[in-house]
Amino acid sequence: MSEVLAIAKRLMAAPSVTPATGAVFDELEAMLVPLGFAVHRFTRGDGPEGSEEAPVENLFAIRRGSEGSKHFAFAGHVDVVPPGEGWTSAPFEPEERGELLYGRGAVDMKGAIAAMVAAVAEVPAEAGTISFIITGDEEGPALHGTRALIDYMREQEVEPDLCLVGEPTSVDRLGDMMKIGRRGSVNIWLEVEGTQGHVAYPHLADNPLPAMVAMLSDLNNLHLDEGTDWFQPSNLEITEVDVPNRAHNVIPATAKARISIRFNDKHSGASLSRKVTEIAEKHGGKARPVISGEPFLTEPGDFSSMIAAAVEAETGLVPEASTTGGTSDARFLRAVCPVIEFGLTNATMHKRDEAVAVHDLDTLARIYTRVALAALQGT
Amino acid sequence: MSEVLAIAKRLMAAPSVTPATGAVFDELEAMLVPLGFAVHRFTRGDGPEGSEEAPVENLFAIRRGSEGSKHFAFAGHVDVVPPGEGWTSAPFEPEERGELLYGRGAVDMKGAIAAMVAAVAEVPAEAGTISFIITGDEEGPALHGTRALIDYMREQEVEPDLCLVGEPTSVDRLGDMMKIGRRGSVNIWLEVEGTQGHVAYPHLADNPLPAMVAMLSDLNNLHLDEGTDWFQPSNLEITEVDVPNRAHNVIPATAKARISIRFNDKHSGASLSRKVTEIAEKHGGKARPVISGEPFLTEPGDFSSMIAAAVEAETGLVPEASTTGGTSDARFLRAVCPVIEFGLTNATMHKRDEAVAVHDLDTLARIYTRVALAALQGT
Ligand SMILES: [Zn+2]
Ligand SMILES: [Zn+2]
Repeated sequence: MSEVLAIAKRLMAAPSVTPATGAVFDELEAMLVPLGFAVHRFTRGDGPEGSEEAPVENLFAIRRGSEGSKHFAFAGHVDVVPPGEGWTSAPFEPEERGELLYGRGAVDMKGAIAAMVAAVAEVPAEAGTISFIITGDEEGPALHGTRALIDYMREQEVEPDLCLVGEPTSVDRLGDMMKIGRRGSVNIWLEVEGTQGHVAYPHLADNPLPAMVAMLSDLNNLHLDEGTDWFQPSNLEITEVDVPNRAHNVIPATAKARISIRFNDKHSGASLSRKVTEIAEKHGGKARPVISGEPFLTEPGDFSSMIAAAVEAETGLVPEASTTGGTSDARFLRAVCPVIEFGLTNATMHKRDEAVAVHDLDTLARIYTRVALAALQGT
Repeated sequence: MSEVLAIAKRLMAAPSVTPATGAVFDELEAMLVPLGFAVHRFTRGDGPEGSEEAPVENLFAIRRGSEGSKHFAFAGHVDVVPPGEGWTSAPFEPEERGELLYGRGAVDMKGAIAAMVAAVAEVPAEAGTISFIITGDEEGPALHGTRALIDYMREQEVEPDLCLVGEPTSVDRLGDMMKIGRRGSVNIWLEVEGTQGHVAYPHLADNPLPAMVAMLSDLNNLHLDEGTDWFQPSNLEITEVDVPNRAHNVIPATAKARISIRFNDKHSGASLSRKVTEIAEKHGGKARPVISGEPFLTEPGDFSSMIAAAVEAETGLVPEASTTGGTSDARFLRAVCPVIEFGLTNATMHKRDEAVAVHDLDTLARIYTRVALAALQGT
């Protein structure tokens, strides 16, 4: 059995629905220590289970090269989304069937963590400093995960020069896509208050819905930008309008709605929040924005070239440098150093019967070894 | 104790939450038979309790005048809306406190039925034909109530020449308003179907909300009319938008909304349904109208003058001839003959601690006697 496969199975057999603590970190620590890593684990959050403040574990592992050597980091998460129902085999009992390994986390992203571990076994200690930045809270609120790890690295003055995040960025085949950036994301709750009343006596009421409809119409017509060299145009979606009202003859008291904006680096969460708030207030309403991520970009250059070369050498594919899709923890790490995401195929991520091709695990480990060596050499 | 008060108490002590059958009709029959009325009662509907087809009782009572005499009808309902919580005294145990009589149905409209019964006792049998058109289903779906009574009258060829409905039309003081018409009412359910998806990949989804917002905006801007001599302008209210969606990152599959139109006699339920359906379809949506009432009007003339004169004689007030407010069963009766509504003050109708001034009961009985006499004389 390939070493990467064995490591992946060990990690996948440790249930770790977000937020993760304990066993899965024990496994990872037990793998890294023999490879010469100093492992620091810490838990943040002291709220009850299920709350945003539920405990989250994080792991920072470092194998220091000689004084002045470069520092390359692998980053990722060992927490997984809840498995849900209907699996063919038990989600936390990894099972090979044919050429695939099934189990929650196979591609997102315990398979990639396994490839990282196998990869560093092939990188000589003298090549430079390597670290693992691993959280148990990427799929959840991400309050006490990668951000806490960044705080820790800053305190310890061990910030990496380059960082690769192992999210499943490949689409149809391993190697066809990497993410050099991600759009930002903001959800904005909208509300218009009126006065309830009877439809037969509208002059005694104040229906909040015409103002809400006009507000949503303005927001829907908002032209945010044309996109950039690296990003598609920013996009606003109305995701909820909630004015439930079982009584046919009642003018409702309050109208609520929500929009979601995915935006490129021509905007910030704050600039969009201001813009939407202005429109909401113009219509007598209120806006409550919750920014879930700022956009980030690592412009194509040396680092993306290293990754592209490693991928091409192992797969024959030149990965597309994309900025599409949801947010990831790379948005936090970009404040520290250039960050690019590259990992397994994402077709089954977050789904039942999540699975990875066993062959891809080995290929990914070899790609990661090549990237680590190139990053530490700085070429 | 005044006779009207005693009658009102007897009717109010018979619980009759809509749809009503049984005891309250027994009471009314027992009052009318000694006054010379032939009473016909029948039940319609055979569905389970709580369904639209639950049994409904109706009562038609007639005291025939001499051949060729005029026929004047009192119409109304003995069902009441559910009492709800928080009453000071039990809703079906009528209680006098100070100058008021409390209990469900005090003003809407057992108090008025009591006044009708007391009124006819003062009208000599030879004055003409008098009838009572009383349903147990006015506050409910009104499927098997007044409409069934009209069918019965047509079969029996006993259609009245004029009809007074005893709804609580007075506002601040008994006598300040009568209703010579009512607006029609239609509720229209709107729906736009889209395709669910993730906000990060809007090209794979089809958000139904922009179309719904544009549709509602068009509907809200619809100018229906300027009103007429007797009616205020027709009015459209958006009463519900229901696109609940707990997931922040999901584009919803379907958008639903509802509008309610109160319209005057420049429109019909069908004409408005067509207009709204056209707008809905223009935006790729569907409309499902439910017409709950067509408008009716009894233009001011002899009948309204009779009522105004009776009211002024007993109260000193000249009642305003209004067409405002919700629908009533008068919309069905108008197909038979001129109909006007006049009754008690409506401040407490459908509320807890519904109450009528005992003094108003006596005054209303005297007004009703005057109206009946005038209507039968045709002056
Ligand atoms: Zn992930
Ligand atoms: Zn009523």
